[in-house]
Amino acid sequence: LEAATPIRATLFPGDGIGPEIAESVKQVFNVAEVPIEWEEHFVGDKVDPRTNSILTWESLESVQRNRVGLKGPMATPIGKGHRSLNLTLRKELGLYANVRPCYSLPGYKTRYDDVDLVTIRENTEGEYSGLEHQVVRGVVESLKVITRQASLRVAEYAFHYAKANGRQKVSAIHKANIMRKTDGLFLKCCREVAEKYPEITYEEVIIDNCCMMLVKNPTVFDVLVMPNLYGDIISDLCAGLIGGLGLTPSCNIGEGGIALAEAVHGSAPDIAGKNLANPTALLLSSVMMLRHLNLNDKADRIHNAILNTIAEGKYRTVDLGGSASTTDFTKAVACTVCEAP
Amino acid sequence: LEAATPIRATLFPGDGIGPEIAESVKQVFNVAEVPIEWEEHFVGDKVDPRTNSILTWESLESVQRNRVGLKGPMATPIGKGHRSLNLTLRKELGLYANVRPCYSLPGYKTRYDDVDLVTIRENTEGEYSGLEHQVVRGVVESLKVITRQASLRVAEYAFHYAKANGRQKVSAIHKANIMRKTDGLFLKCCREVAEKYPEITYEEVIIDNCCMMLVKNPTVFDVLVMPNLYGDIISDLCAGLIGGLGLTPSCNIGEGGIALAEAVHGSAPDIAGKNLANPTALLLSSVMMLRHLNLNDKADRIHNAILNTIAEGKYRTVDLGGSASTTDFTKAVACTVCEAP
Ligand SMILES: CC(C)[C@H](C(=O)O)[C@@H](O)C(=O)O
Ligand SMILES: CC(C)[C@H](C(=O)O)[C@@H](O)C(=O)O
Repeated sequence: LEAATPIRATLFPGDGIGPEIAESVKQVFNVAEVPIEWEEHFVGDKVDPRTNSILTWESLESVQRNRVGLKGPMATPIGKGHRSLNLTLRKELGLYANVRPCYSLPGYKTRYDDVDLVTIRENTEGEYSGLEHQVVRGVVESLKVITRQASLRVAEYAFHYAKANGRQKVSAIHKANIMRKTDGLFLKCCREVAEKYPEITYEEVIIDNCCMMLVKNPTVFDVLVMPNLYGDIISDLCAGLIGGLGLTPSCNIGEGGIALAEAVHGSAPDIAGKNLANPTALLLSSVMMLRHLNLNDKADRIHNAILNTIAEGKYRTVDLGGSASTTDFTKAVACTVCEAP
Repeated sequence: LEAATPIRATLFPGDGIGPEIAESVKQVFNVAEVPIEWEEHFVGDKVDPRTNSILTWESLESVQRNRVGLKGPMATPIGKGHRSLNLTLRKELGLYANVRPCYSLPGYKTRYDDVDLVTIRENTEGEYSGLEHQVVRGVVESLKVITRQASLRVAEYAFHYAKANGRQKVSAIHKANIMRKTDGLFLKCCREVAEKYPEITYEEVIIDNCCMMLVKNPTVFDVLVMPNLYGDIISDLCAGLIGGLGLTPSCNIGEGGIALAEAVHGSAPDIAGKNLANPTALLLSSVMMLRHLNLNDKADRIHNAILNTIAEGKYRTVDLGGSASTTDFTKAVACTVCEAP
């Protein structure tokens, strides 16, 4: 048997703890013999005129060419007029849907058991239009922009995802009782798409009520789809239910089938370089990337190894109340991968 | 000793379960000998041209005259072009701040213990401007409007409230990293007011992070102040932490010192008239009204009676897992009021 040609994927280790947790992924992928060849890209230290940000042109080109990538946390330098790197990536790569599965990790206790839901966030418009102005002194306005195109696109993705992953229900989250036109259009698009998926239950839930239901009983939800800001809010709320952003993976879906998996936590500069970071979110994100590539055996093996290591409890990082270093935890995951049949 | 002249207060029993829970308040106030004379107003069944809604002119006048009132749930008829009654009241009475204390009820277990925070929501502008338009087919916009005047006013109220109630910290909740101008102005106003209250700690928390912190550990918060939509979302989330909207009181503060206390749950038409409703939210709201009137002894007595009845557990309504009727529960609270020294 010939060795399969490796798949090229872009890797943004990112800032702060980024390089350490990216190293974890590389080690685990090595042990699991994942046929991936990384193209590593770092954020530059000066503005690249072609991207109008400190993201390099080459790095964006790399994702566009490979159509698949993994991204650690990126810290946007403050107060120098830099555009947010995360927002720039979303925009430049047309990353229209942010997908965040959120599930209770076996053996890691929080207040909630059996959480198992997925938030799908419209990632390009809404309250993030950047259109703001002062009307007169002391009166300012922001524009929320909702388009039929972007709403249909994310709704399509949500139902496609639900079906492909054996999910039963899609809930569209909104505040159309107040924002009748914008959220109303979003709902209209969701309804249109829902009609094409009679096997998936469709419901609409007002955002305030949704947040109350999530904290009372998150198990009533399955897949949630929503405009940008609601997705920002609800996905973090959901992460909180199962332990925080250090434990939740995410993947951004872009135009032309791009998938950029991403750990959405911060770069934690206070613990950077100290071998203390928890690589779980980035590892689980890398599993989402593998599934996107249909490398499901590898994905399953790595996923199980991460979950078993956390459940077993001997090697937990400091944020989970343990004393394992980043490398201890990584080694434990890697060994579990090896031992797996 | 002469009997004190009774204070006149407006009462909107509201729709659905409203009249039943309003009856609870009246009975408990009677037993506690609260010197209040109710002016009862019902929502009409046709539009009053002077209010452009089914709220009667007389009812608004009553609140304006009395400067104090209590409101049950109001159901806005759907699909007849009616303006939301809640929004009309906020607008017509200039109810600029919605105050919602949220605390764990002793003896009623949820996933969270020792919650004790207060959300203060700007109630008149922001995402609720009602300004929306279609730019071209398939592209719609909503305007979020933030003004210096309304932001200062609610910030002033939040700090005043914090100081008057022995609170230590005010957290301003925002998304100014994205909505730099609107939420930026809101923060600027909060900072200005914070400077006048050096004894109160002031902090700023991004809304997504705030929601995650609330579900992980709500006890880190004290008083939270925020623009309209964030207040809508976060106040319901907080209600969920301690058991839901059936248990949380609220009070709206308006221009010229108006206080309209309000149960923010729905009118529950499915159980209306069946003697099943839980009057707790309206009773606790009536306590907020009494405190506003400086009737603190009465407020304390009724508040303790409600909390003791729930804690004691013998008379809990169906929503709390008990089997007491509305009148059973009310009687139990009333008896506890009587027995109190
Ligand atoms: C950093 C910030 C601009 C970003 C957002 O608001 O989208 C973050 O909260 C996220 O969820 O990725
Ligand atoms: C009914 C609705 C218009 C209202 C709001 O969004 O303000 C409600 O959710 C509330 O919190 O009072």
